[in-house]
Amino acid sequence: MDKIMECVPNFSEGRNKEKIEKITDSFRGKNNVKLLNYSGDEDHNRSVITVVGEPESLKAAVIEAIGKAIELIDMTQHHGQHPRMGAVDVVPFIPIKNATMDEAVALSKEVAQEVSERFGLPVFLYEKSASAPYRENLAAVRKGEFEGMAEKITLPEWIPDFGPAKCHPTAGVVAIGARMPLVAYNINLDTDKLDVAQDIARKIRHVSGGYRFVKAMGVELIDRKQVQVSINMTDFTRTALYRVFETVRFEARRYGVNVVGSEIVGLVPMEALIDSAAYYLGLENFSIDQVLEARIME
Amino acid sequence: MDKIMECVPNFSEGRNKEKIEKITDSFRGKNNVKLLNYSGDEDHNRSVITVVGEPESLKAAVIEAIGKAIELIDMTQHHGQHPRMGAVDVVPFIPIKNATMDEAVALSKEVAQEVSERFGLPVFLYEKSASAPYRENLAAVRKGEFEGMAEKITLPEWIPDFGPAKCHPTAGVVAIGARMPLVAYNINLDTDKLDVAQDIARKIRHVSGGYRFVKAMGVELIDRKQVQVSINMTDFTRTALYRVFETVRFEARRYGVNVVGSEIVGLVPMEALIDSAAYYLGLENFSIDQVLEARIME
Repeated sequence: MDKIMECVPNFSEGRNKEKIEKITDSFRGKNNVKLLNYSGDEDHNRSVITVVGEPESLKAAVIEAIGKAIELIDMTQHHGQHPRMGAVDVVPFIPIKNATMDEAVALSKEVAQEVSERFGLPVFLYEKSASAPYRENLAAVRKGEFEGMAEKITLPEWIPDFGPAKCHPTAGVVAIGARMPLVAYNINLDTDKLDVAQDIARKIRHVSGGYRFVKAMGVELIDRKQVQVSINMTDFTRTALYRVFETVRFEARRYGVNVVGSEIVGLVPMEALIDSAAYYLGLENFSIDQVLEARIME
Repeated sequence: MDKIMECVPNFSEGRNKEKIEKITDSFRGKNNVKLLNYSGDEDHNRSVITVVGEPESLKAAVIEAIGKAIELIDMTQHHGQHPRMGAVDVVPFIPIKNATMDEAVALSKEVAQEVSERFGLPVFLYEKSASAPYRENLAAVRKGEFEGMAEKITLPEWIPDFGPAKCHPTAGVVAIGARMPLVAYNINLDTDKLDVAQDIARKIRHVSGGYRFVKAMGVELIDRKQVQVSINMTDFTRTALYRVFETVRFEARRYGVNVVGSEIVGLVPMEALIDSAAYYLGLENFSIDQVLEARIME
């Protein structure tokens, strides 16, 4: 695969294994499409599929999966802890290799147009594909959820970007867009005081004055009797992992607290970690092209 | 490519571009073989080619390249600064992905047998493929070089592993074997005193009491007015980059000297750097399978 895009579609079915398999089948046995991971969450009643591929092949497979989900999932019967607005809740495209963000945006719009026409599904473009700043944030788009969407999309400011201004009766609406790879990164502290983790989270996250591409909150790790700064790194190429790690370390010191370790949840692009190694080893004149695997994948 | 081996053959021609290109052509336009790098050194009069591939395809291409080198290079006319004993001086195979060291050893022996039969070339197996411990070290095998080899291989302890106990008239002999990936890693110090770099090199290298998989020496960086501990990491999976970096740092302190940075020369496997990132970030429960590119290559 010369050009690689990633797609991480979220479907509102986390309990019925047979349905999850049928949707996931759209990504199996396809040329230039590789299923990396999929998992259903019973409490959330939601599945997340991680797949990479050549843009055109990936596009066809994603459209097929959306079609199957619309056929199999009835949102009027859906209950789960996670907020959701459609059978296919959200479909982000992520540039991985020899692909730009502009290409990911273009791909998301092509998919949006096709699924709106083929399935009569209203589509909101979000994140980098959004048609207006107030539509960038997924939470803002999804507010009201499936049950409130019938009314919401009749409002002038919430006219869908593609498709009818009318909910699909069983599949609701979908958000499709392009974004940077997300790294779920948690830093663990040797204290059981939740307010320490919450204070540090506030200091590092963008919304309250911290780093531009950091979302963070404090979380209790009950079994470990420790707390965690739970972080979403929304653009590791501009806010680096090591920078956040070192910042949490020096902020923790004022409470007499130490960082005991950190963890990466799920997948992480090679570059996010190699960038941190390059910082700590003080690598001079280093280029990602020196990484054997980067060269093999070229 | 499901299974990937690397091969880094060294040829005794670094000046005649046409000949270098003809040899390198053996690795171009072949299915499941990917030429990563090649370069000729005029002073050394030697070329190094870095290539990866599926074992069987790589084997065929390497044999073809050896044949071309034997045809094009006349060792009776060869002069250069680097020690050498044949037109094809040394051919290491390195397991990269879904391949074991045992498989690399087996592959090296298949190539050794075939080139000895096809071209009448005497072959010494070296490193992990060696038939006796005293033949593991390439420098020991190569001692005497091309000019001394005619006599050396008549000695009972230097009978070749494959082929006749008689030098090829124009191509000499070759060493073929299997080894771990080598990482050329240099650490720079903020002093111009060569003896400081030499002292530290002595402390970290295996031969004088240091780490098992480290070769090191002190080098002057005249232009920078600094010195460097120049290192070959011969198995980064067992002696890690960060461990050597931190050791050089604390050894430098006794001279009031600081590490200013480090550098990787040429290619480095992803895992060598990710392992260092995992150390510095204190990553808990991390697996290389969480790296997106590792999953894509699977």
